Amino acid sequence: MNSIITGTGSYIPDVVKKNDDFLENTFYSEKNDRLTDPNPSIIEKFQSITGIEERRYLKSTLLNSEIAALASHRAIEAANIDPEEIDHIIFAHNFGDMDANGKQSDMLPSLASKVKNLLRIKNPDCVAYDIVFGCPGWVQGMIQADQYIQSGMSKKCLVIGSETLSRVIDPHDRDSMIYSDGAGACILEKGENEKKGILSYACQTYTFEESNYIFFGESNKTEETEDTLYLKMHGRKIYEFALNKVPLAMKKALDESGLGIDKIKKILIHQANEKMDEAIIKRFYRLYKNQVPEGIMPMSINKLGNSSVATVPTLLDLILNDNLEKHKIVKGDAIILASVGAGMNINAIVYQY
Amino acid sequence: MNSIITGTGSYIPDVVKKNDDFLENTFYSEKNDRLTDPNPSIIEKFQSITGIEERRYLKSTLLNSEIAALASHRAIEAANIDPEEIDHIIFAHNFGDMDANGKQSDMLPSLASKVKNLLRIKNPDCVAYDIVFGCPGWVQGMIQADQYIQSGMSKKCLVIGSETLSRVIDPHDRDSMIYSDGAGACILEKGENEKKGILSYACQTYTFEESNYIFFGESNKTEETEDTLYLKMHGRKIYEFALNKVPLAMKKALDESGLGIDKIKKILIHQANEKMDEAIIKRFYRLYKNQVPEGIMPMSINKLGNSSVATVPTLLDLILNDNLEKHKIVKGDAIILASVGAGMNINAIVYQY
Repeated sequence: MNSIITGTGSYIPDVVKKNDDFLENTFYSEKNDRLTDPNPSIIEKFQSITGIEERRYLKSTLLNSEIAALASHRAIEAANIDPEEIDHIIFAHNFGDMDANGKQSDMLPSLASKVKNLLRIKNPDCVAYDIVFGCPGWVQGMIQADQYIQSGMSKKCLVIGSETLSRVIDPHDRDSMIYSDGAGACILEKGENEKKGILSYACQTYTFEESNYIFFGESNKTEETEDTLYLKMHGRKIYEFALNKVPLAMKKALDESGLGIDKIKKILIHQANEKMDEAIIKRFYRLYKNQVPEGIMPMSINKLGNSSVATVPTLLDLILNDNLEKHKIVKGDAIILASVGAGMNINAIVYQY
Repeated sequence: MNSIITGTGSYIPDVVKKNDDFLENTFYSEKNDRLTDPNPSIIEKFQSITGIEERRYLKSTLLNSEIAALASHRAIEAANIDPEEIDHIIFAHNFGDMDANGKQSDMLPSLASKVKNLLRIKNPDCVAYDIVFGCPGWVQGMIQADQYIQSGMSKKCLVIGSETLSRVIDPHDRDSMIYSDGAGACILEKGENEKKGILSYACQTYTFEESNYIFFGESNKTEETEDTLYLKMHGRKIYEFALNKVPLAMKKALDESGLGIDKIKKILIHQANEKMDEAIIKRFYRLYKNQVPEGIMPMSINKLGNSSVATVPTLLDLILNDNLEKHKIVKGDAIILASVGAGMNINAIVYQY
């Protein structure tokens, strides 16, 4: 029997960081040269490519594991289950708990353990672990949970994607304007109907030439390095890589599901960059010699930015709770959840509601 | 069909750190008081409890992911497989890559991705991810790999446990003398014989009161904190917890395997502390109203210390390669792999050679 999503939850941080809030930053290139364009035009160009108008940052008193627990609590309520029945807590992140002023990542104990503690779950047979898999971590956590349900190890899993990227970004790097904070979670359970739930998936890891496309590196402003590393990326390489590889992985998953392309009602793709996401979807439909249907790709990036592992579960939760204008998922809809990010990792799930 | 181990490898760092090398340290209590006992007696007491005479540290030019790749290469050679056939790389760690002078953990991309890159594996269908599960991470990685093999997702998995604890320890904390660096890895494959391989397992996560028994905290010497966090533990609580819970988890796994206690030839337990490990095994046999058989529990802690996720795979590799005096595992032997650590997590695997 397929695994089904019985509840979702998310936490969207309060602090709204607008593009204009970066007007006073001093931006440098990857090669450490001061950018010569004035900030208003840097920011305008940024917005036209990424689609991002504003993003959310966590207030300084909260931690990644704490907002993850809030999102998880909502998912558990929505699923209407007893938290003591959860067999697995899988927490996808890439930077652990970073406090607002610190440089060190705290994942001792694992963030999944911290969440389990915060949720006051007693059952010791609820096994809690973290997965590090770049931005596609939450989708991969769902694939792992599905495997445990298929193998009989688990019946109910809590899968979390939560990240505080605002705490690992270089203020002198334009790319930093992409990133945001957020948490999403869902409950995946053993279903009773073969035609519903997770029908198929695909996942890949490219490292031969790609492992450093997203990396932990020094500030673009060399004199400010002072031993601190930041989230960095080679944007152009990622763009080309994603366009070449993501549509194929999505096709692999869809073809394995047995569904036709016309059955797909929504594609929830990692909110990395609006232009890139649009180009991926266009290529995906081109593989089936189809045009991109109107309204197929809900986007949250314009207001929420790229919160890494949290984008896909947050987007799903927004839609299911009627909190994303013009987008609905109803019974009978097939959807694709897809992601790409550090690793470089790619994955896709075909899911039937 | 059960999953079988077809190859193991390990990397034992070169730098030997002897107990006498701590004679000049200034030790403080958890409550930040200077310890009044002279260092020679502190160290003597430490050795009598933990069994540790010396431990291994990585030289400053190497990283966790690099020694993991060395251990993995040896495991692949021992298994005599084409690395391109590996379906999953699962890397268990708790602190990422820490450079010898830095404070920041680098796991971007994941350490599994870094290892895949270092091994020059091209196959994109080899999915690489990290798991954070405290010291029992490697054993849990084996359980996860087994699930993927059982569900049909994977046929061959590389499971790595590698850690550089020397880079996260507080020089003013006696407990720091426990910790060491090391890497272990193995290849787990789909077997062809129901009576061989992983027969059963148990895993648990205790967080209700236990989540902070092992944690990331400040130096015992308050004035030296300067914003740096270290691996810390509440030793007495861990000792009691482990004695109460680990034997029961081992029993659960053994009873599920269908084997009698008399069939177990070796128990490879996480090298946490010699006295604690001996007490756990004694309680385990007491559950079966048996005495502990001579030579049942191979130990490496006296020379190698506690290298977290690396202790169990390193111990297995040492024995299989006849590098641990007086201990052998031969065809037909049933063994238990067991671990306990931060989370608090416990697990055990019953394995038939």
